[in-house]
Amino acid sequence: MSTTTKNQNPESDPRVKAVFDDIRATRKSDFINNMWHYLAFDPGLLETTWAEVKAVMATPSALDPLVKELLYIAVSVTNGCGYCAHSHTAAARAKGMTDEQHADLLRVISLAAKTNQLATALQLPVDPVFDADHHP
Amino acid sequence: MSTTTKNQNPESDPRVKAVFDDIRATRKSDFINNMWHYLAFDPGLLETTWAEVKAVMATPSALDPLVKELLYIAVSVTNGCGYCAHSHTAAARAKGMTDEQHADLLRVISLAAKTNQLATALQLPVDPVFDADHHP
Amino acid sequence: MSTTTKNQNPESDPRVKAVFDDIRATRKSDFINNMWHYLAFDPGLLETTWAEVKAVMATPSALDPLVKELLYIAVSVTNGCGYCAHSHTAAARAKGMTDEQHADLLRVISLAAKTNQLATALQLPVDPVFDADHHP
Amino acid sequence: MSTTTKNQNPESDPRVKAVFDDIRATRKSDFINNMWHYLAFDPGLLETTWAEVKAVMATPSALDPLVKELLYIAVSVTNGCGYCAHSHTAAARAKGMTDEQHADLLRVISLAAKTNQLATALQLPVDPVFDADHHP
Amino acid sequence: MSTTTKNQNPESDPRVKAVFDDIRATRKSDFINNMWHYLAFDPGLLETTWAEVKAVMATPSALDPLVKELLYIAVSVTNGCGYCAHSHTAAARAKGMTDEQHADLLRVISLAAKTNQLATALQLPVDPVFDADHHP
Amino acid sequence: MSTTTKNQNPESDPRVKAVFDDIRATRKSDFINNMWHYLAFDPGLLETTWAEVKAVMATPSALDPLVKELLYIAVSVTNGCGYCAHSHTAAARAKGMTDEQHADLLRVISLAAKTNQLATALQLPVDPVFDADHHP
Repeated sequence: MSTTTKNQNPESDPRVKAVFDDIRATRKSDFINNMWHYLAFDPGLLETTWAEVKAVMATPSALDPLVKELLYIAVSVTNGCGYCAHSHTAAARAKGMTDEQHADLLRVISLAAKTNQLATALQLPVDPVFDADHHP
Repeated sequence: MSTTTKNQNPESDPRVKAVFDDIRATRKSDFINNMWHYLAFDPGLLETTWAEVKAVMATPSALDPLVKELLYIAVSVTNGCGYCAHSHTAAARAKGMTDEQHADLLRVISLAAKTNQLATALQLPVDPVFDADHHP
Repeated sequence: MSTTTKNQNPESDPRVKAVFDDIRATRKSDFINNMWHYLAFDPGLLETTWAEVKAVMATPSALDPLVKELLYIAVSVTNGCGYCAHSHTAAARAKGMTDEQHADLLRVISLAAKTNQLATALQLPVDPVFDADHHP
Repeated sequence: MSTTTKNQNPESDPRVKAVFDDIRATRKSDFINNMWHYLAFDPGLLETTWAEVKAVMATPSALDPLVKELLYIAVSVTNGCGYCAHSHTAAARAKGMTDEQHADLLRVISLAAKTNQLATALQLPVDPVFDADHHP
Repeated sequence: MSTTTKNQNPESDPRVKAVFDDIRATRKSDFINNMWHYLAFDPGLLETTWAEVKAVMATPSALDPLVKELLYIAVSVTNGCGYCAHSHTAAARAKGMTDEQHADLLRVISLAAKTNQLATALQLPVDPVFDADHHP
Repeated sequence: MSTTTKNQNPESDPRVKAVFDDIRATRKSDFINNMWHYLAFDPGLLETTWAEVKAVMATPSALDPLVKELLYIAVSVTNGCGYCAHSHTAAARAKGMTDEQHADLLRVISLAAKTNQLATALQLPVDPVFDADHHP
């Protein structure tokens, strides 16, 4: 079930083939997951989306690669995105997430969901000390 | 603006005082933020909430304390909880988050929000390889 | 701060006046909260919105009036709607919500947010017994 | 999988039949999608829901019918509603949405999700010039 | 489809068995739904989650048990949690929810979603009278 | 109130100045709203964010500029992003949105929120005819 048609021969388009080749080279794997197969209906959208994912997730930066995957899971779960929860949990495991870390991740993000709900229900006024502008 | 009244003298209730004392001891600080002041309208709710926050966030576990704060921010922002975004960004800074890490956090969680939206718009079928049950 | 202008003299429009009169009569109060003042920029939108709120919330039905307010709070908080959390918590109090019930409401809706997060993170398969169609 | 039973013979109830007849006449099609089949467990709920959908979506108004479908998709995707993403993407296509417009829709709504995340993470103060009340 | 493996013999772990036994005793039923089977990958997470669900949902408190299930549904639906919508609708039925109450629940929570959207779109200023702190 | 400090002299950094100059040139206005002032704490994040907003929102494409603003509002409101609701409602007005169109926008997005809630509550099975893959 999807809202666009999956192209049966996406790499006949050279722009799509170039992106798929770069995904395979970057990930050192022949597997191309459905996200990229379905985005291929518009090569421009495929190119800009992959370029950003590569720049943010597959390029060394201030945060550790596994930490970035955990953050991706946290957002995906909070947004209720099933595809994303599946793909990024698999990615986190591939990057070394242990069962203990997985359980700890669940503890933190489910507690955050709970206290978010409390804070919103109480409509808490922000403590002035938390304002970055007024306390540099 | 809030939906419950802030108790002007919360520590006159010994159950509230015990929680506030433990917050101060755990955090090594005299500051009690509004979350706890407002939850104090029901001492039982205050006790169980603090006990869980302490167990998950202030006790050594499989994930690093700063990573746990970053995850808390990711969920809070995705839930649109302003109070929580303020308090946990401040907490992450207190635990050593640099500006570079903060910018990287924003890059990851905003990219995740974007690709979540794409995955949901396309209603992507989950690739079988992502199913933990079928690929142990 | 708002995204539409608040009409300074809304009841000069007879359609707005008719709705405001019905709000006052239904609630037995002279107070008209901001929701209706701001919706008044389009009398048609004001009329249909009030008609539905009156039919659902101010008309006897299968659920108790206070229960309906608690449900309204639950949705509003989960959606992160500050205005709605404030107005419906006030309405629930006016309909008799006690502090004990308020704390219990917070316990249920924050636990639900937490277990929702767990269920989504785990991507739990629905137990067949929960399908209404297959177990009539 | 659903949470209510699908009535096997819904049109035996004359109120349901009247709504189904009006859906067929309005859409000039014999197809009745699952939304209406499942809402039929309560004829009153079916009637008011269809009346509002017909008034808003199938009646000429200030916005173009295709634009209204695109907006419906935007909300449905942001809410993570799979059924709605499927049904309204199909409806937009039936009203003439091209692949180029579909890709453009995805670009806009995924960018919006991204900058929403940034604005909420930064807890940006609203620029006074954006307040409709103070700058008429 | 799930993101963790379902243990085929969970009760070989005595901590898991103790929780499952308590679930069966509390609910007076042999059925253990998937939530608990999948959480069993981490006995500590299983124990604390069940302890909280039991304390909040299966212990007499200020709100009626059926009302608590309706609130759970309201949050679950608003969060877009399919598993939770299924399990708690089934639970509400088991606690006596009638079709009329179910339809009324749908009326209230869908109206709340609609007016939440309006209030957020208009960015309504909170009426001072709704502030619990200023009107004790 | 914000979670990062607003730079008092952002254009002393030539990368920030270049982006601000391009914003002014693109929009033909001297006004730089808070989004860009606060993102300036990380010039790289500022550059990539503005580049994407310019490419998607300020470049001719398959959808009309005003339609793109309406879609932006729809997502922003559904995500509960107050800053975004304010800034994009102002932008839509600047691009010609009338009061009648604004009211129609509110009617569509609030109806979508309502029927999303119903579809999720009912956990409707997707009609096979809505699957793009099976009906090309």
